[in-house]
Amino acid sequence: MIFTEKITSRNNERIKYAVRIKEKESFRRGEGLFLVEGARLCYDAALSDVQITELYVTAEAQEKYGSYISLVAEKAERCFEISGDVAQKLADTKSTQGVFCLCKMLDKNTNIGKIKYNGKYIALEDVSNPSNFGAVIRTAEAVGLDGVIVSGGCDLYNPKSLRASMGSVFRLNVVETDDLPGFLKSLANEGMFVYAGVPDSNAESITEVSMAGGGVSIIGNEGNGITAETLEAATKLVTIPMKGRAESLNAAAAASIMIWEMMR
Amino acid sequence: MIFTEKITSRNNERIKYAVRIKEKESFRRGEGLFLVEGARLCYDAALSDVQITELYVTAEAQEKYGSYISLVAEKAERCFEISGDVAQKLADTKSTQGVFCLCKMLDKNTNIGKIKYNGKYIALEDVSNPSNFGAVIRTAEAVGLDGVIVSGGCDLYNPKSLRASMGSVFRLNVVETDDLPGFLKSLANEGMFVYAGVPDSNAESITEVSMAGGGVSIIGNEGNGITAETLEAATKLVTIPMKGRAESLNAAAAASIMIWEMMR
Repeated sequence: MIFTEKITSRNNERIKYAVRIKEKESFRRGEGLFLVEGARLCYDAALSDVQITELYVTAEAQEKYGSYISLVAEKAERCFEISGDVAQKLADTKSTQGVFCLCKMLDKNTNIGKIKYNGKYIALEDVSNPSNFGAVIRTAEAVGLDGVIVSGGCDLYNPKSLRASMGSVFRLNVVETDDLPGFLKSLANEGMFVYAGVPDSNAESITEVSMAGGGVSIIGNEGNGITAETLEAATKLVTIPMKGRAESLNAAAAASIMIWEMMR
Repeated sequence: MIFTEKITSRNNERIKYAVRIKEKESFRRGEGLFLVEGARLCYDAALSDVQITELYVTAEAQEKYGSYISLVAEKAERCFEISGDVAQKLADTKSTQGVFCLCKMLDKNTNIGKIKYNGKYIALEDVSNPSNFGAVIRTAEAVGLDGVIVSGGCDLYNPKSLRASMGSVFRLNVVETDDLPGFLKSLANEGMFVYAGVPDSNAESITEVSMAGGGVSIIGNEGNGITAETLEAATKLVTIPMKGRAESLNAAAAASIMIWEMMR
């Protein structure tokens, strides 16, 4: 591995920049960059279309995760060896592996053209908990959905949600939109079914709707559900029949069941 | 509300005792008591068969959550008004509501006799993440399972899992066992199906097994899955068919899908 520099100071400008990218969504978005932590996750990024600008790695990690890191180093524009102290500063986890890379965000519009009108998608509207958010994307990939549509809520490039997604973000077709109702209407106009999951026993049960034919299932915010504008864009309101006294399923559980109904 | 005492010192012996109950599983188990935080969760406890020994509540909370608290106060053996400072010491959450109650654990053996051999249950073996653990119990109640069997892993009375379960722990038939394989064998002997969910594409797909007929579905530890002894006690190995590249579903997502397949 050819290192541009060895960084041992927590106050190094490059490191301070990377920490801001990690911590501040607005800064991250402005720069169009995000930070990935962990040997396997950096490797997943390297296997994808994502461009890697910088790799930061401790000497210890090079020994331990060499097989993952060599591909990342090959794809990265610049590689830096960092001290354990610097790794701790970059880290979002308590016991860091000491492997990080700075990546370029994909152009938001790239993936829109890849939507298959006969495909199966889930749309996350304002899902705000990073663990829920990442877990749903992981589940979507695991069972074989064609992609995820994201609008508001947790940032796609949040360090926690990236980890919870286990790299699915790098492999799935993920579409970001600021206008979910408009986007869903355009999909409905192409003949796609758009299912809104609501906790309303008057809506049709998901066991009675054949969701396996494809379409988009919308999952709303943990507290407030799906917005009125987005509900209006749905072609069908569906519900998961409840029998017990727990008020409703949590967002991740509801999403798992909706995703599963589309695939089974 | 009749208060025995007003507690304003964080070093009050009663408060220190309650904090140990909250924080130390071994101490909690030894004393047979657990601490519940939050107006709604304390109310859920008061509505259940659980015995409440003490209520701790701030003056502010009495105003704000009076409708919930009055029932808790009625059931509690003793009520204490506490200062905001003491509430912070008792709290497991950052912004506490200032309502806590100390409850007696149910006798482990009480619920075993309530197992219905034609019912639907989920068994959690060594599920260790409190959020996963609580969320699965919440999901089980929401869709209408008859109960949950718990063995190892996260403590049923862990503050985080109690919160994540949204009080389902107080309403569902929850059975604790130290010998899951033995217990499952005894259920199988009574004619119950015992399904072990495994990430093995050779196992039968859950879409091809009619799990809606009832039985017990086992969910294993997040990292290690189901133990060999427990797998042996299962009457059938089943799998959730995977299509994508995410290595496997997380425990909570897998549990949601298994639970849902039993109910749909």
